[in-house]
Amino acid sequence: MTTPADPYLLTPGPLTTAASTKEAMLRDWGSWDADFREMTARLRRGLLDIAGDTNGEYDCVPLQGSGSYCVEAMLGSFVPRDGHALVLANGAYGKRMATTLRYLGRRHTVHDTGDYLPPRAADVERILIANADITHVVVVHCETSSGILNPIEEIAEITQRLGRRLLIDSMSAFGAIPLDVRTLPCDAFVSSANKCIEGVPGFGFVIAKKDVLRDAKGNSHSLALDIHDQWDVMNRTGQWRFTPPTHAVAAFIEALRLHTLEGGQPARLARYARNRDVLVAGMGSLGFEPLLTEPWRSPIIVTFFSPADPAFSFERFYELMKAQGFIIYPGKLTTVESFRIGCIGALDESVMRRVIEACGNALSTLGVANAAPAPASLGAREALAA
Amino acid sequence: MTTPADPYLLTPGPLTTAASTKEAMLRDWGSWDADFREMTARLRRGLLDIAGDTNGEYDCVPLQGSGSYCVEAMLGSFVPRDGHALVLANGAYGKRMATTLRYLGRRHTVHDTGDYLPPRAADVERILIANADITHVVVVHCETSSGILNPIEEIAEITQRLGRRLLIDSMSAFGAIPLDVRTLPCDAFVSSANKCIEGVPGFGFVIAKKDVLRDAKGNSHSLALDIHDQWDVMNRTGQWRFTPPTHAVAAFIEALRLHTLEGGQPARLARYARNRDVLVAGMGSLGFEPLLTEPWRSPIIVTFFSPADPAFSFERFYELMKAQGFIIYPGKLTTVESFRIGCIGALDESVMRRVIEACGNALSTLGVANAAPAPASLGAREALAA
Ligand SMILES: Cc1ncc(COP(=O)(O)O)c(C=O)c1O
Ligand SMILES: Cc1ncc(COP(=O)(O)O)c(C=O)c1O
Repeated sequence: MTTPADPYLLTPGPLTTAASTKEAMLRDWGSWDADFREMTARLRRGLLDIAGDTNGEYDCVPLQGSGSYCVEAMLGSFVPRDGHALVLANGAYGKRMATTLRYLGRRHTVHDTGDYLPPRAADVERILIANADITHVVVVHCETSSGILNPIEEIAEITQRLGRRLLIDSMSAFGAIPLDVRTLPCDAFVSSANKCIEGVPGFGFVIAKKDVLRDAKGNSHSLALDIHDQWDVMNRTGQWRFTPPTHAVAAFIEALRLHTLEGGQPARLARYARNRDVLVAGMGSLGFEPLLTEPWRSPIIVTFFSPADPAFSFERFYELMKAQGFIIYPGKLTTVESFRIGCIGALDESVMRRVIEACGNALSTLGVANAAPAPASLGAREALAA
Repeated sequence: MTTPADPYLLTPGPLTTAASTKEAMLRDWGSWDADFREMTARLRRGLLDIAGDTNGEYDCVPLQGSGSYCVEAMLGSFVPRDGHALVLANGAYGKRMATTLRYLGRRHTVHDTGDYLPPRAADVERILIANADITHVVVVHCETSSGILNPIEEIAEITQRLGRRLLIDSMSAFGAIPLDVRTLPCDAFVSSANKCIEGVPGFGFVIAKKDVLRDAKGNSHSLALDIHDQWDVMNRTGQWRFTPPTHAVAAFIEALRLHTLEGGQPARLARYARNRDVLVAGMGSLGFEPLLTEPWRSPIIVTFFSPADPAFSFERFYELMKAQGFIIYPGKLTTVESFRIGCIGALDESVMRRVIEACGNALSTLGVANAAPAPASLGAREALAA
């Protein structure tokens, strides 16, 4: 292995966590014990605080498993069996929600705007008016496959105005991008431990209105993913229904402490945005072009077009970056060649400057003089700007 | 807090893990990276080795979530929608399998032998003969709610003889109790990271026949819990479908190394059996009586009757044990008062002797002179001996 011991993860979770977050895992906790129950209560309260739930209208239900488990749990528990969901898809995670609803046998309509175009309120309005039986709108906050920040505020507004309910996959956004339940009307949203709170993977959480949690009784297709039951048992006993990932929870408590210490969501947003800005500017100086135009570009992860130069190979570029201590991420677009660099995790603009330097070195080694993409690729971006 | 910094967990998972197992979590791993893919491959191979799969008939599919997720995934993926499962229940985990099948809408018949009586081949034979449409038998290996070691060998033999298929919840047994697929006919079994392999919680795994995995396509009620899909993607890409609990996986690799180093399943069984024997003898000298008669008593966890002396209170006993550095476990029987002490985890007979000493101290503080149970409680044990 030529890899340095601890490469930075420029990936959208698992990500680079603080040393103290990992060190919190150096102890075994009994899941039945009062100390651990208190940690669970602290975790739930900390997340509700970040969500702006000042009047106790919402509750937080952590759930074992990865983020996709929480999305499935939210859909299975909150879209009733006779419901009809409108899925706004513009990437892999939106599509996965449609796949999940198919597994669950819940009626759904997909509004797919492709790899990088956002869903807009006007389209949603048209679809909801034409389909009076649609009960729920489901949307991805930051669609991590391209890095686009979807306009959930306008989606929430039109959904509420037309009397439907909103469910949000805020996996890669919550904790850094504003999502305040006092101003954003939604029934529920999900996120996970290993994204903008900068914990380690092992669980996710659903934040939902208490009356929605109450009404979810009997909806779920799955025992393990029954949010109502998880909520009910947790509220009655203070415990997780099944064995919790105790070490990941301990790490998360420390991650939450660091989140607060930094200044909460606004401070985290500022750091990630600065990471993105330094990254995009630096990559630009090497010739790399981002997929998205500025207003849609999230501070979570940035997609860059692969250089047109035939000397460029993502596999070799990846290995050259790794040898310099940086793990980057492949693209997830269906039409054009791309790769992604994450801006989240325990890293700042000084790390981003080293990333740029490493990218420059890698290009030199590959013999790529300019990283500009094929002009045809940029058509994607023009469509977005239109 | 009067608790010592690192109490021993005398609980059946999460349990006390080795320091080096926890230290393996002090690094962040990229889940897409080749190094992590290799760790996943190593984990799968290591578990198949413990299961005795020398001729490549079985495969191992790790799955994010707790053990119950794996049980649900196994039932949902392997009991076809028109199948009919016979659930052998003698405690909470057998009952949970029935509950799971109810959620899934899969036909099932429950043979419930109560809190501590084992299912026997003769009864299973009678039920299978009377119900020709039963396709699957599902059984718990060690029913952790009482600690009983169910006779899965005789259940497997009759199930095979009558042409049905066997699914086993070996959560708390695999890695210590023999379960060798060369001699024990079964379609699949599940276990989890934080039991006898002594990893940290965060995932479990299914070990299943490859043809059973292949035929499972389209069965699952859930995307997240679709074992076929998880297997298929993992075999094609070397990756987990969704974000893996990377730190728990790294810890598990170290736990597997320690398992091999100790001498594998036989050595682990010997250590746990010795823990149990020292525990039962020592507790006996204080007057405590175990629920189960010797042949049924597992080396995993032992249930003791609560003392009849009215000065005994489990809550106070628990706190007194905790103050001495030992976390014990409440009982899970429906009819008699009891508590449990686990024998698994990174601890040996010298720790068990300190546990006995601590129990003696706790009894003195409570003013309990003799820990003998009410004679009526022992009726349970007599029924078992009959
Ligand atoms: C927006 C979004 N949704 C869902 C997921 C799936 O989460 P997981 O991989 O933890 O299952 C991700 C993962 O990155 C994501 O970014
Ligand atoms: C036999 C058995 N089955 C299932 C489970 C459930 O596992 P989990 O709590 O990880 O969901 C346990 C947990 O101890 C168990 O012992």
